[in-house]
Amino acid sequence: MSSEPPPSASAPAAAAAAVDDMSTDLSAATLSKKQAKKDARKAEKAEKAAQRQQQQQQAVDAEDPFASHYGDVPVEEIQSKAVSDRVWSQVGDLDAAAAGRTVLIRGFAQAIRPVSKKMAFVVLRQSMSTVQCVLVASVDAGVSTQMVKFATALSKESIVDVEGVVSLPKEPLKSTTQQVEIQVRKIYCINRAVPTLPINLEDAARSEAEFEKAEQVSHIQVACSVCILFSRSWREAVRVGQDTRLNYRSIDLRTPANQAIFRIQCQVENKFREYLLSKDFVGIHSPKLIGGSSEGGAAVFKLMYNGQPACLAQSPQLYKQMAICGGYERVFEVGPVFRAENSNTHRHLCEFVGLDAEMEIKEHYFEVCDIIDGLFVSIFKHLTENCTKELETINRQYPFEPLKYLDKTLKLTYEEGIQMLKEAGTEIEPMGDLNTEAEKKLGRLVREKYGTDFFILYRYPLAVRPFYTMPCYDNTAYSNSFDVFIRGEEIISGAQRVHTPELLTKRATECGIDVNTISSYIESFSYGAPPHGGFGVGLERVVMLFCALNNIRKTSLFPRDPQRLTP
Amino acid sequence: MSSEPPPSASAPAAAAAAVDDMSTDLSAATLSKKQAKKDARKAEKAEKAAQRQQQQQQAVDAEDPFASHYGDVPVEEIQSKAVSDRVWSQVGDLDAAAAGRTVLIRGFAQAIRPVSKKMAFVVLRQSMSTVQCVLVASVDAGVSTQMVKFATALSKESIVDVEGVVSLPKEPLKSTTQQVEIQVRKIYCINRAVPTLPINLEDAARSEAEFEKAEQVSHIQVACSVCILFSRSWREAVRVGQDTRLNYRSIDLRTPANQAIFRIQCQVENKFREYLLSKDFVGIHSPKLIGGSSEGGAAVFKLMYNGQPACLAQSPQLYKQMAICGGYERVFEVGPVFRAENSNTHRHLCEFVGLDAEMEIKEHYFEVCDIIDGLFVSIFKHLTENCTKELETINRQYPFEPLKYLDKTLKLTYEEGIQMLKEAGTEIEPMGDLNTEAEKKLGRLVREKYGTDFFILYRYPLAVRPFYTMPCYDNTAYSNSFDVFIRGEEIISGAQRVHTPELLTKRATECGIDVNTISSYIESFSYGAPPHGGFGVGLERVVMLFCALNNIRKTSLFPRDPQRLTP
Repeated sequence: MSSEPPPSASAPAAAAAAVDDMSTDLSAATLSKKQAKKDARKAEKAEKAAQRQQQQQQAVDAEDPFASHYGDVPVEEIQSKAVSDRVWSQVGDLDAAAAGRTVLIRGFAQAIRPVSKKMAFVVLRQSMSTVQCVLVASVDAGVSTQMVKFATALSKESIVDVEGVVSLPKEPLKSTTQQVEIQVRKIYCINRAVPTLPINLEDAARSEAEFEKAEQVSHIQVACSVCILFSRSWREAVRVGQDTRLNYRSIDLRTPANQAIFRIQCQVENKFREYLLSKDFVGIHSPKLIGGSSEGGAAVFKLMYNGQPACLAQSPQLYKQMAICGGYERVFEVGPVFRAENSNTHRHLCEFVGLDAEMEIKEHYFEVCDIIDGLFVSIFKHLTENCTKELETINRQYPFEPLKYLDKTLKLTYEEGIQMLKEAGTEIEPMGDLNTEAEKKLGRLVREKYGTDFFILYRYPLAVRPFYTMPCYDNTAYSNSFDVFIRGEEIISGAQRVHTPELLTKRATECGIDVNTISSYIESFSYGAPPHGGFGVGLERVVMLFCALNNIRKTSLFPRDPQRLTP
Repeated sequence: MSSEPPPSASAPAAAAAAVDDMSTDLSAATLSKKQAKKDARKAEKAEKAAQRQQQQQQAVDAEDPFASHYGDVPVEEIQSKAVSDRVWSQVGDLDAAAAGRTVLIRGFAQAIRPVSKKMAFVVLRQSMSTVQCVLVASVDAGVSTQMVKFATALSKESIVDVEGVVSLPKEPLKSTTQQVEIQVRKIYCINRAVPTLPINLEDAARSEAEFEKAEQVSHIQVACSVCILFSRSWREAVRVGQDTRLNYRSIDLRTPANQAIFRIQCQVENKFREYLLSKDFVGIHSPKLIGGSSEGGAAVFKLMYNGQPACLAQSPQLYKQMAICGGYERVFEVGPVFRAENSNTHRHLCEFVGLDAEMEIKEHYFEVCDIIDGLFVSIFKHLTENCTKELETINRQYPFEPLKYLDKTLKLTYEEGIQMLKEAGTEIEPMGDLNTEAEKKLGRLVREKYGTDFFILYRYPLAVRPFYTMPCYDNTAYSNSFDVFIRGEEIISGAQRVHTPELLTKRATECGIDVNTISSYIESFSYGAPPHGGFGVGLERVVMLFCALNNIRKTSLFPRDPQRLTP
C-alpha cells in the first residue's frame, strides 16, 4: 500500500521538506545500528529522488524561485520518516526576548487575512496561545506573491507549519495573545481542514456582551451606510447553541474558554489528589461493574455480565467502606459515576467524574469536615493564584464574580439554615430536604451574613439521608451528615457511616430495606470495622460553580445526559 | 430511635470514656455559639448520668478499682458525641524516641497472646505497621487481672483503643514492625469482630517458603513429640486460595503484602500523572458510556441507555484523538476500561484501570517512545528509591528479583525481535503477531543480551494493528507502532495514528470496515487535525510485572473476570 497523495501537493516544497527531514539524528543511542544503516540507505535514496523531483519542478515553476518555501506537505512526509534535529517553539513562549530569532512552529490556522497580493496575515494557534504571522512578498525574505496567494488560500483551522523571524509589532496586537509577530520565511500546510467548518470558531468564542454589541452595530448600520466596513465582521455573528457545540465538540473545544475550563478541571483534580496524598490518603480504584442491581435500586444502568445481571456503580460508597475495613485508613478515588436519572437540568449528568474520599474517624465526623475545609480552601487558593490566565480567559467569554470563601470554612447546622430561611420569609419543612430554590436562597443569605459562597451545612435530618448514615447521638431524628455548598448549589455530600452490623441492620430495617439483599455488606462490618466517614464531590460541578458557569455541559468534555450519548 | 446497646458493654468504662469525651473544645471557631450552648447542656446532663452510672457500677465492681480502664465502648460513644483535644499517635511513628511518652492509638487487634492471669500481649495494627502492647496486672499501673482477662478475651481483628506508655523491649521484637512496646494503662474495644473470621490473616500473609517450612515441621512432629509446642503455631497453617481471598477481600486486603501492593499502585499512578503533567499533558476524562456498539465490535459490554443501544468504552482511543483535534496538544487519562472477553488467564481482567496518553507529534512517533522512556524510567526509579518499605513487604510474601531496566530504554524493531527468536530456534511467522510464549522467550533473550527486563519493540506488521494505525512510509507492510514489554509480557501498545480522512477511509476499507459506520470519526479529521500518536497501559499489569506477581487479581482491588463480579 502506498501513501495517500496530498489533496493539492506542491511537490517541490514537499521534496524540500523531505530533504530537511533527512538530517536524521542517526547517532541517537536508541536507534539500533542495523536500523540506522537501513535508514541511512533509505535516506540517501529519498534524497536523490527528492533532488530529481525538485529539479523537475523548478523547471516548471521557473517563474517562482521560492516555490520550495511553501506548499502542502504530502502525508507520507508525516509518516515518521526520520528524526531530525529541528527545534520547535511553543507559541505561548514567544515574547519580546525572542525578537530576531528564527523559529519553527506548528498550529491551527485560526485566521487568514489577505491585505494585498503582496501581503497577508495568518494567525496560528496552539491551545490558548495565538501569534500573528506576516507574509510580505520580497526577494530578500524569499517570499513570492505565489507564496502569499498560497497562504491566503489556506482554509481556516488547517494545520500549518511556519518558519520565520520573530519581530516586534509597531502597535500592540489586539487579536492575538502573543505580543510579537513572525515574519514568515516558509509556510507549509500539514493537514487541510474543509473550507467550511460546521461551526465558526469566532462565533463559538464570543461573549454575550460581544453579541449584544454586534446586534447594536447591526442596528445602527441600517441607518448609516458609512459603518458598513466596520460592521461587516459583526453582521454575521451567529450564536452557537449548546447542542451544536456538543455535536462538533472537537471544534468547540478549541475556543479559549474551553481550553481554559478543562485545564482548570485538571488542576482541581490534581490539587484534590495532592492535598489528600499529603494527608496520608491512598488513591484507589473500585469496580464500576457491580453484581445485582446496585444498592440504590432506581436510576441504575443495567446490563448482562457473562450471563449474570449486573449494573454500573452509582457511587464507590460500598467499596470505599470496604477499603477502610481493609485497613487503608484513608482512601480517595477519582472515577466515573453513573446515574440513569431522567434529569434534564443544568446540573445533572448521567455520567460524571466523582471525587470520593473515605477515612477512619477517631471521635467525630468533623474530622471529615476539617479535611474538606483544608482541601477546598487549598483548591480555591491554587486556582486563584496559579491559574490566572485560565480564569481570565473564561471570564472574557463568561464573565463571573470571583468566588468568596473564608480561610476557615463556615459550618452551620441544618437547623440554623432552616431558621435563616424562615426569618427571610421562606416556608420550609424543618425535617424535609432543601429543594434547589431553598438552597439557592440560603446561599444568598449566607453570603450576605457571613461573606462566603462556600459553607458546610451539617446535622441533616436522618430521614433524608441513606440508611448507612450514622444517627446523631443525642437526637436520632438528626444525623451525623452534611452537605457543602458553592454559590447556593450543593456540591458535596458526606457523613459518618454506621460501622456496626447491629445498628446497620436496625437502620436498614427502619428504612424498609430487605436486609437479606444487603447481608454481605452488613456482614463485612463484623470482621473488624473502624468508625469512619467520608464524602463525594462531582468534579464537573466544582468547576461549573467555581467559575459560575450556567450549565454542567460546559464542564464535561463529552457530556452524557438523558438525550445525549454522542460524540 | 435510640442507639444500639453494645454487644457486651462494660458500663463503667463506657461512662468514663463519655466523661473524657466531654472535654469538648467548644471554643472551636467552627462551632456556632448556639450549638455550643446546647452541647454544653447536653454534656452536663450526660456527665451527671455517667457519674451516677459509674457510682452504681463501682459498687458492683467493688473488687476491681480499675474497672474504668477497660471495656467495650458502646456505639453511642462513637456517634460523634464531641470533639476532644485528645492526641492520637500513628503506630508507624512509634520509635525509640517516643520511649517514656504516654500515647493513644487505635488499631486492629492482630494478635492476642495470654501469658498468665497477670500478663498478656496484644499486637495492634495500623495499615502496614504493628506494635506490641503489654498488659501486666499491677496497682501502680492501674491494671487489674480482670483487665488482663478482658484483653485476652478480645476477638482478633477487633478495633481497639490503647492508652499506654512507650517502652523499649529488652530484646528485638520479631513479630512487630515497631521496635518499641506499649505498657498498657487503658484498653477499650470500639467494635468487636466475630470470634472466627472466614479467613485467618496469619495464613493469608504467609509466604510459600513459610508454608513449606511449616509442612516440614509438621512432618518432623510425627516422630518427635517434644516439638509439639514449637510446632503448634504451624500445624494449622492453611493455604488461603485466591478465590477465598477475593470472597473476603476486606479481610484479605489487611495483609502486609496487600497493603503494600495498593500503595505501590497508587504511586505508579501518581508518578504517571506527575511526569506527564511536567511535560505539559492535560488530564482529561472521556465518557465510558458510548453510543452504538463501540469501534471494536466484539468483546463489548452492551446496555440500553434511555432507549438507545449503548456500550461501555473498551478504550478512550477515539476521545483522546478528539481531544487532540480539540487543541489540547497532549492529553492523558486514568480511568476504567471494559473488556467483555472470556479470557481466563493470569493477565486479563474484564475491567481494569487504563493509563492512556495521546500527543501531537511533530515528525516521528519516536517522540511518543521518548515520553514512554522518560515516564517509565522515572516510575521505576521512584518505586525503587521511595517505596523500599512497600517493596520489601511484598518481597517477604512474594519474593521477586528487582526489575532490570536501562537509563535509556532499549528499542528494537519487530524484525530484530523475530530474528532473535529465530536464532534461538523458535519457529515464528514473521508477519504475524507474537504469542504469549514467544513474547516470554523474547523477554528472556533480550534480558540475556541487553541486560534489561524493559524494552520497546517497534515497527510491527500493519496487519496485526488497528485500522487507524499509521503505516510505515517506506514499507506499508509495517506500521508506525510499538509494544512495550516488562519481563516478557506486553504492557503498553502505542502508535502514530492516521490523521487524514483520506488515508483513514482507505485503511478502514482495506481492513474490511464499513466506513459508513465510522463516518463521524473519519469526518472529525477534516476539521483540522494535527499529526499525533499515543499509547495505553494497564495499571494492574504494571504493578503485577514490576513486582513479578503471578496473577493480575493480586493487583486489582476488587477484580472483575469472566467468573467474578463480587464483592
